[in-house]
Amino acid sequence: MRDIYLDNSATTRILPEVRDAMIRMMELDYGNPSSMHRKGMDAEQMIRQAREEIAATLKVDEKEITFTSGGTESNNLALIGTAMANRRAGMHLITTAIEHASVSHTMDYLESQGFEITRLGTDEKGRISLEELEKAIRPDTILVSIMMVNNEIGTIEPVEEIGARIKAINPGVLFHVDAIQAYGKMIIRPRRWKIDLLCVSGHKIHGPKGSGFLYIRDKVKVHPIIFGGEQQKGLRSGTENVPGIVGLAIAARMMYEELESHVEKMYRCREILIQGLEKLPGVTINGAEGTGAAPQVISASFEGIRSEVLLHSLEAEGIYISAGSACSSNKQQHISATLQAIHLDRKLLDCTVRFSLSIFSTEEEMEETLQVLEELLPKLRRYVRK
Amino acid sequence: MRDIYLDNSATTRILPEVRDAMIRMMELDYGNPSSMHRKGMDAEQMIRQAREEIAATLKVDEKEITFTSGGTESNNLALIGTAMANRRAGMHLITTAIEHASVSHTMDYLESQGFEITRLGTDEKGRISLEELEKAIRPDTILVSIMMVNNEIGTIEPVEEIGARIKAINPGVLFHVDAIQAYGKMIIRPRRWKIDLLCVSGHKIHGPKGSGFLYIRDKVKVHPIIFGGEQQKGLRSGTENVPGIVGLAIAARMMYEELESHVEKMYRCREILIQGLEKLPGVTINGAEGTGAAPQVISASFEGIRSEVLLHSLEAEGIYISAGSACSSNKQQHISATLQAIHLDRKLLDCTVRFSLSIFSTEEEMEETLQVLEELLPKLRRYVRK
Repeated sequence: MRDIYLDNSATTRILPEVRDAMIRMMELDYGNPSSMHRKGMDAEQMIRQAREEIAATLKVDEKEITFTSGGTESNNLALIGTAMANRRAGMHLITTAIEHASVSHTMDYLESQGFEITRLGTDEKGRISLEELEKAIRPDTILVSIMMVNNEIGTIEPVEEIGARIKAINPGVLFHVDAIQAYGKMIIRPRRWKIDLLCVSGHKIHGPKGSGFLYIRDKVKVHPIIFGGEQQKGLRSGTENVPGIVGLAIAARMMYEELESHVEKMYRCREILIQGLEKLPGVTINGAEGTGAAPQVISASFEGIRSEVLLHSLEAEGIYISAGSACSSNKQQHISATLQAIHLDRKLLDCTVRFSLSIFSTEEEMEETLQVLEELLPKLRRYVRK
Repeated sequence: MRDIYLDNSATTRILPEVRDAMIRMMELDYGNPSSMHRKGMDAEQMIRQAREEIAATLKVDEKEITFTSGGTESNNLALIGTAMANRRAGMHLITTAIEHASVSHTMDYLESQGFEITRLGTDEKGRISLEELEKAIRPDTILVSIMMVNNEIGTIEPVEEIGARIKAINPGVLFHVDAIQAYGKMIIRPRRWKIDLLCVSGHKIHGPKGSGFLYIRDKVKVHPIIFGGEQQKGLRSGTENVPGIVGLAIAARMMYEELESHVEKMYRCREILIQGLEKLPGVTINGAEGTGAAPQVISASFEGIRSEVLLHSLEAEGIYISAGSACSSNKQQHISATLQAIHLDRKLLDCTVRFSLSIFSTEEEMEETLQVLEELLPKLRRYVRK
């Protein structure tokens, strides 16, 4: 049976090296990092090493890395934690209309708590306007949150330029970047780019589910959102998930050790898929072109074919894709905020799917997927109700 | 080298069956439960099965189980989530002076948010007074939080009786039980005992670190504390840690399948250790006796020997114990609230350690530990400054 997994922006296959390290941790080193004896010290040392490895991928300090249970918790801690710690400086936050639910719904929560939220729109490629951002910054603005790579269409926001513009207006405004779809796929330099908070998820980079981290620039005030034994300098209480943390660090290191070849390979696959899709009748590619988008995400609309129908038809052929973003609560019908923000033709909103690649994707898989689609599309369109 | 691990209330060794299932999950089934294709459905089915297995251990409904990243998050969600959802009914909460930091510090946070907290004291065995509890309940009381087994001294609170007393006064007052040290060591019946919320950690029952769950009785209103893709009916957003959840369920099932023999074995070990300790000069056992305490926790004070000194001396002999509770932020000197609550002699506060057992503990290990202590204590006391 064919098995072409093109839903890597939802989750990725764990690396064998990550799995093996986690097994070792589970077998041998089962100490609680808070224990004062050797087994505890060993576990703590593992965490310190993981923190150093991750910090090295961003060229930041190890003490600026806080481990969490995943990308969603990282975004929540970054946003709620800084909003609560800085509310005396102001109650205004700026974000975009195309954020992942772990940012947009957290902003909704903050709005319910009395904060005021400005949501920036985008152009038809999914890029925000720098001028509009500059105009939105007010004396009571405490934080700007902008994702680096959109999870549905792959468009890259110019976070370096955004950081510079924000800080030129007011160095006190904090800049948060959801880098969950960007980390491991491109170089990120929080310091040089004036990013104060940056969030990453483990299972999007062939690491363990239930792992993630948050970069918090030294001296940025963040309140915890989970209280208890005051692990991680009080920022994130709870016994550390040592195997998860170790696995996350290995995945991070491996993604960046081979970054260039991974990215080149993914962009090559992406181009093959896009060029092939564009030759098929009634197919539109969404988002930015070339290196304006991340290497792993391809959003395509298939006129007249509902995304769910295409998804299940491809599934029957052993090809796994996503209808819009798979990261929101499953099976609920909802219209994608990102596709609305880029003003996608209304009749295509329901006909859009996402192909998402990983380091394991191959050119042969792209060719095969295109071949299957070529045979499938006429059949599916024949059944469409007029 | 000797390796006697008696710090199981800090964390436990993972079961081989748990580890193997997690490896299988990591190798084969790596779908995102929110994905609509088969790999997503498979992952969702795994979670559903895990939920059913866990619900069966408590005789509750599977829809009453919410997965979290661990015990600390479970307690936070239970307390902050219900306080926020029920604040219109009242702003008063009741707890005890001997709770774990994941409850006591969360209560401190709620206090800072305008809630009023009553903290009940205990007798010298660590048991709260039911009469005092009854008197503390007011018309604006919304929740009572009482741990089932104290993590430092092992004393069991009579939660069944407590539930009955609370509900007799006001059925609207919610009853939260931190069962992190109790689950897997005794039968727990939330429904019959009128418990509305109950928290469990995976790594205390030979399950994975980074896993835990929260029982929320049907119809109890809880607000989420982490926002995003609305997984788990919106109560806990974030891609589910599928291997962690599957591992947790296997550990839970295995703890309850063999509960009777496990508990009997641990009580036997406990009695051997306690009887031996009591024969040593200047040793006091803290907490309730016999089955008034959990089978796995032994708290002992060694007159004239600082707990850290004893801990490291035993460590040098390959015996791993804890100074007080290892679950709070490591290496910080702090005086245990539990030991203060039971009015432990001031000169013993700093001389108290915890031995904690697991299903892997043996009678031979107890004898060996006693033998080492017998040789060690006179030497350590010789060096004590007068």
